[in-house]
Amino acid sequence: MKNKTLYTDFYQLSMMQSYVKNGLHNQEVVMDMFFRKNPHGGGYCIICGVNELIEFIQNISFNDEDIAYFKSLGKFDDEFIDILKDFSFTGDIASVQEGTIMFAHEPIVRVRANILQALYIETALLSIINFQSLIATKASRVCMSAGDDMVLEFGSRRAQGLEAGTLGAKAAVIGGCFGTSNVLAGKKFDIKISGTHSHAWVQSFDSELEAFRAYAKAYPDETILLVDTYDTLRSGIPNAIKVFKELRQSGHEPKGIRIDSGDLEYLSKKARKMLDRAGFEDVKIVASDNLDEYTIEYLKSLGAKIDVWGVGTKLITSYDYPSLGGVYKLAAMVKNETFEPKMKMSEDPRKMNNPGFKQVFRLHDKETSKALADIIALESESIDENKDLEIFHPLYTYKRKTLKNFYVKALLEPLFEKGKLVGKICTTDEAKKRVKEQKELFWHEYLRNMKPATYKVDLSEKLHKIRQDLIDKNRVKK
Amino acid sequence: MKNKTLYTDFYQLSMMQSYVKNGLHNQEVVMDMFFRKNPHGGGYCIICGVNELIEFIQNISFNDEDIAYFKSLGKFDDEFIDILKDFSFTGDIASVQEGTIMFAHEPIVRVRANILQALYIETALLSIINFQSLIATKASRVCMSAGDDMVLEFGSRRAQGLEAGTLGAKAAVIGGCFGTSNVLAGKKFDIKISGTHSHAWVQSFDSELEAFRAYAKAYPDETILLVDTYDTLRSGIPNAIKVFKELRQSGHEPKGIRIDSGDLEYLSKKARKMLDRAGFEDVKIVASDNLDEYTIEYLKSLGAKIDVWGVGTKLITSYDYPSLGGVYKLAAMVKNETFEPKMKMSEDPRKMNNPGFKQVFRLHDKETSKALADIIALESESIDENKDLEIFHPLYTYKRKTLKNFYVKALLEPLFEKGKLVGKICTTDEAKKRVKEQKELFWHEYLRNMKPATYKVDLSEKLHKIRQDLIDKNRVKK
Repeated sequence: MKNKTLYTDFYQLSMMQSYVKNGLHNQEVVMDMFFRKNPHGGGYCIICGVNELIEFIQNISFNDEDIAYFKSLGKFDDEFIDILKDFSFTGDIASVQEGTIMFAHEPIVRVRANILQALYIETALLSIINFQSLIATKASRVCMSAGDDMVLEFGSRRAQGLEAGTLGAKAAVIGGCFGTSNVLAGKKFDIKISGTHSHAWVQSFDSELEAFRAYAKAYPDETILLVDTYDTLRSGIPNAIKVFKELRQSGHEPKGIRIDSGDLEYLSKKARKMLDRAGFEDVKIVASDNLDEYTIEYLKSLGAKIDVWGVGTKLITSYDYPSLGGVYKLAAMVKNETFEPKMKMSEDPRKMNNPGFKQVFRLHDKETSKALADIIALESESIDENKDLEIFHPLYTYKRKTLKNFYVKALLEPLFEKGKLVGKICTTDEAKKRVKEQKELFWHEYLRNMKPATYKVDLSEKLHKIRQDLIDKNRVKK
Repeated sequence: MKNKTLYTDFYQLSMMQSYVKNGLHNQEVVMDMFFRKNPHGGGYCIICGVNELIEFIQNISFNDEDIAYFKSLGKFDDEFIDILKDFSFTGDIASVQEGTIMFAHEPIVRVRANILQALYIETALLSIINFQSLIATKASRVCMSAGDDMVLEFGSRRAQGLEAGTLGAKAAVIGGCFGTSNVLAGKKFDIKISGTHSHAWVQSFDSELEAFRAYAKAYPDETILLVDTYDTLRSGIPNAIKVFKELRQSGHEPKGIRIDSGDLEYLSKKARKMLDRAGFEDVKIVASDNLDEYTIEYLKSLGAKIDVWGVGTKLITSYDYPSLGGVYKLAAMVKNETFEPKMKMSEDPRKMNNPGFKQVFRLHDKETSKALADIIALESESIDENKDLEIFHPLYTYKRKTLKNFYVKALLEPLFEKGKLVGKICTTDEAKKRVKEQKELFWHEYLRNMKPATYKVDLSEKLHKIRQDLIDKNRVKK
């Protein structure tokens, strides 16, 4: 997948040519990416994928082969093909920082560009941010359940292809995982990789004991043994303990066992007792086998003796919620340097987008630094930190609340200006740290995995009025 | 994602080095890929991804950067690093052909290779075949519900990244979709691409009517108009009909409308009536909006007037079943040119793999060509087409049946021999045709989407005996 520029929906090209044929292709527009529902039935989403978006935008260009392909389709005329030959992104993009916690309906990425460019990038932009944000959020949930225990991402073999496995591993680490099994992700994103051995290792020897001895011989100071190839309690753990004792006699300390199947509550409790009794209180128990935030929460509540959680399929595919469903909508046309607001109508009020050239302001309590509410407003607005602010629910406007003693942070920051990268490419580590900091900024009630409280995301008076006026104007009389 | 060689789980490398340290790295082994459950609650799986597996295998090689990375980890010694410097795949791989219908527990890919190589390729092999097979199968299900109607893959923006969107689009077309919206997939795999315009197109004009006119002007002979930006029945369809009449007056025939939201049964029936009444009986109705095989089946049963189905999120992510869960298990050690069978034990009998160097034989009725049953056997076995064959259920062996008058096809075919590609790289079109042919070979009962009949997959007497002996040998006395 070297040249990704062609990653777009064909209708973007049909529309682009239509604008050209109608002489409208120099129009400047504003488009926003946002999602309509926080994923996994949770209360928030961690935004991830900004670096790959940057990479995509910077590399937009059609090579000769692409141009030949366009010609071969017989659907594009020479004027349009000529435009594609010199096509690149020369507009503005504002985005929240990698690792920012965001909520439904808030602009995450805001594009201001020539209409051809703004349309063209939609498909890749959505796919990149949708996927990585989903996995970072899922990882955050899994890690929340695991508490202080270490969580490792183990899903590469179950990922939706190699790129998904690699970028997903990175997003999982940003979202909170300690490391991954994925070597490519380890190298590419400078993240910790780990793993010991599989069932095949054990099976390839004449006996489990021989297999364990051979592994311990290779890694005397890092021995973690997989104990469930034949029979966890009757064979795996006794053999592991035998080898651990041999290790200790030769001056080494074993590190752990891994249980990959069976009744994890029962087996881990039994294993802990057997290990403790044999004098291996420090040996860790790693568990894997179709885990997710719910199983981990439950196993912990039952007192399962698991120290490290290996999470695969359910995390790398976000199994219970495999698509964030982010959308990208026209919010304004730029006419004589002013913004003509635009919105899509719908029977469902939550499906109508917010019009205009917008910003998201996050209000934090001055004393606790905790986030109080977000206000979606026009970019040209500002919020006075020295005055109380009455906010209201965007649909049920009688729901009102007055905020006092807050400071304000604007979340959308310039990423590209006139096609030039002006934002910062942050490292995986920086993004991971930001997630941690962000989570500190919210009350636990908003972030908990099940039935979270709803964080307030309101509109400014001004934006609310623009929106209402557009609804009144666009509504077809019935 | 240029160099994919590093796509592996770290434990493969730990194990590989352990084999080297134990002087066991020249051991030859047999490993099988199979899945344990047919996906989506259905009765079958369409295998897809063989070409990408070929590409991965052929390009295995660590560059200087990779070697430097391995050294930087501080976990590998020089002897092992030297082995990695010259690492490539020099073993044998047998595989079923792209587009073959397969069932739970059947070997799909069989690897016979040096143990280091056999282990190394596991992670990528699984991820590639798991994902594409899943999407091809999901597409097959969606297309089965759509019957003779055209199905288009529209999910690129919701895919788990750009590679998943592109390879997924290809798999969807192999599984039965007519085409995709994904331009990159269109070019790369020579498949049909299509698409017209989005809501943004309509919003960017001062009125819907203007937007429709502008689009029709650009594509007078291919006009398909999206009618749900403001109000489908009161604005969208009336405006579309107005423009269709203008088109006809200027000597062109409109092609269709698209409805992307709302009550698709009601709207499509109303739309059909309005279009027919205006004299546009040939104008097609395209529907999209979170469709899957169940919604399509239901809408059709209700008589919805939809001609073309655009399917996005639910198909490209296989939303209800986002991972095939295929595994790759050690089946035999090769010792003095004979195969020492190996299996993993489990409390759950369905979780134990089939040991040995195996083949899958498919028995077809000589008269109807319909598949009767599959027999998993040793590669060295053959099935006599001139004798009746008694088959039996692998777990409930009292369930028996005698097959008569059949011919036999061996499904695993050589793909690599001593590292050289000997199998054929088939085109998307060939794979698509094979899926169609394959579906003809099975009675509908086995392939239907809900509560399918269980197709018989049995073991040969010989393989069954080997398996039983191993179970007896490996079982720990309780």
